[in-house]
Amino acid sequence: MNEKSNTKTAGLIIIGNEILSGRTLDKNTQIIALKLGEVGIQMHDVRIIPDIVDVIIETVQVFSKKYDYVFTTGGIGPTHDDKTAKAVAKAFDTELYQHPDALSILIDYYGDIKHMNDGRMKMTFVPRGATLIDNPVSSAPGFKIKNVHVMAGVPKIMEGMLNNIIPTLEGGDIIKSIQVTFNKPESEMAGVIESIEREYEIDIGSYPQFRDGEPEVTIILRGIDENILLTALKGLKNKINNTNLG
Amino acid sequence: MNEKSNTKTAGLIIIGNEILSGRTLDKNTQIIALKLGEVGIQMHDVRIIPDIVDVIIETVQVFSKKYDYVFTTGGIGPTHDDKTAKAVAKAFDTELYQHPDALSILIDYYGDIKHMNDGRMKMTFVPRGATLIDNPVSSAPGFKIKNVHVMAGVPKIMEGMLNNIIPTLEGGDIIKSIQVTFNKPESEMAGVIESIEREYEIDIGSYPQFRDGEPEVTIILRGIDENILLTALKGLKNKINNTNLG
Repeated sequence: MNEKSNTKTAGLIIIGNEILSGRTLDKNTQIIALKLGEVGIQMHDVRIIPDIVDVIIETVQVFSKKYDYVFTTGGIGPTHDDKTAKAVAKAFDTELYQHPDALSILIDYYGDIKHMNDGRMKMTFVPRGATLIDNPVSSAPGFKIKNVHVMAGVPKIMEGMLNNIIPTLEGGDIIKSIQVTFNKPESEMAGVIESIEREYEIDIGSYPQFRDGEPEVTIILRGIDENILLTALKGLKNKINNTNLG
Repeated sequence: MNEKSNTKTAGLIIIGNEILSGRTLDKNTQIIALKLGEVGIQMHDVRIIPDIVDVIIETVQVFSKKYDYVFTTGGIGPTHDDKTAKAVAKAFDTELYQHPDALSILIDYYGDIKHMNDGRMKMTFVPRGATLIDNPVSSAPGFKIKNVHVMAGVPKIMEGMLNNIIPTLEGGDIIKSIQVTFNKPESEMAGVIESIEREYEIDIGSYPQFRDGEPEVTIILRGIDENILLTALKGLKNKINNTNLG
């Protein structure tokens, strides 16, 4: 990332054995990174960890100190393998208590207090000092404590919660990006890319891929000033077209 | 994971700004976790980190000590933002050198030494003491040093390298799993799941999702003994069908 920009940082903790075992493809990282980027918050670090209380505690403590904003997904459901709320409470040296608003939200959702079994009751407990994050999909709320936002793991629910969190965050400079794809192998362009990066003082990433079996490379230019990016893009195209790259 | 089983552990380091920015969806974690699981190696920890040398060094050092096997993806291409080889060399207090086999593999692939520009030459350098990992897709090899396997980030190339690594690994007990899906909300089943987990001493995960807007939950039973899993599954189904869960 550009050292001179005033960006805010974020860390994401994905909690869930189902991601680590390979059963489930994690889609939350991409959704969260893109939405944060739009408001000038840059994802710096993602960890995928198991449903083990001590591991969650340690990771939350490290991330909370290191990044402006921390997000977690997973482990706040009704079952015994949902350990996130308990671990986050311990990470901040506090305890779980039944949040009265969470209780009334769930009673409303399930229609009557007599439908509130143990599993559903579990979802009304949050760390002392936490504020609730509204869940527009299935009612059971997430919560925020200090700079840590605790969200559900199911992408549809997570995204509903995230949409409620985003307006509460203070973003920094937004990193803009423009990209261009060349039908050439990446290895032909390394020198040109580096010289453009140095000349314009921007960040450039190059991402090789295959299309119909042929190598191509997408070059992404990133920076906070769009005009510089456009000028650098022109410079890049000129150099690539006018250089004997072979 | 089951504490009593003799499993081997793995950690995965995903190196790449393109994943952290949300531009690219990481598919490598799932592919690697599934293939390792098949040979009795359990993924314990995944980190997604930026292309910053010091961050790569620190993460490789921590993971190499903590897990039986470490895998990295990304950052071994021809361009300036490919910093993994250099960082891994530093993590093990050694330096890069031109591996003669890597050089001849790349000369073969590009047809003539006069097509070996700086970017392509870069891909022939690996840390001293490393052995090469064959790349059946685009020739530029990965490498292994100590317990760390350094692979490409493009999933197709990564998978080709991984297929060459797998037969060289010593696996532990294979964790088997069976799963069953119920058309009920997860919150109705929390108590039953917990009692089955305790009764059969296996690991159970429950994963809520939506299908056509209706809540359902997949229960996954995991353990090394398939017979115990099948008996536990029968017990689970009986309890769910015979209990007033409301």
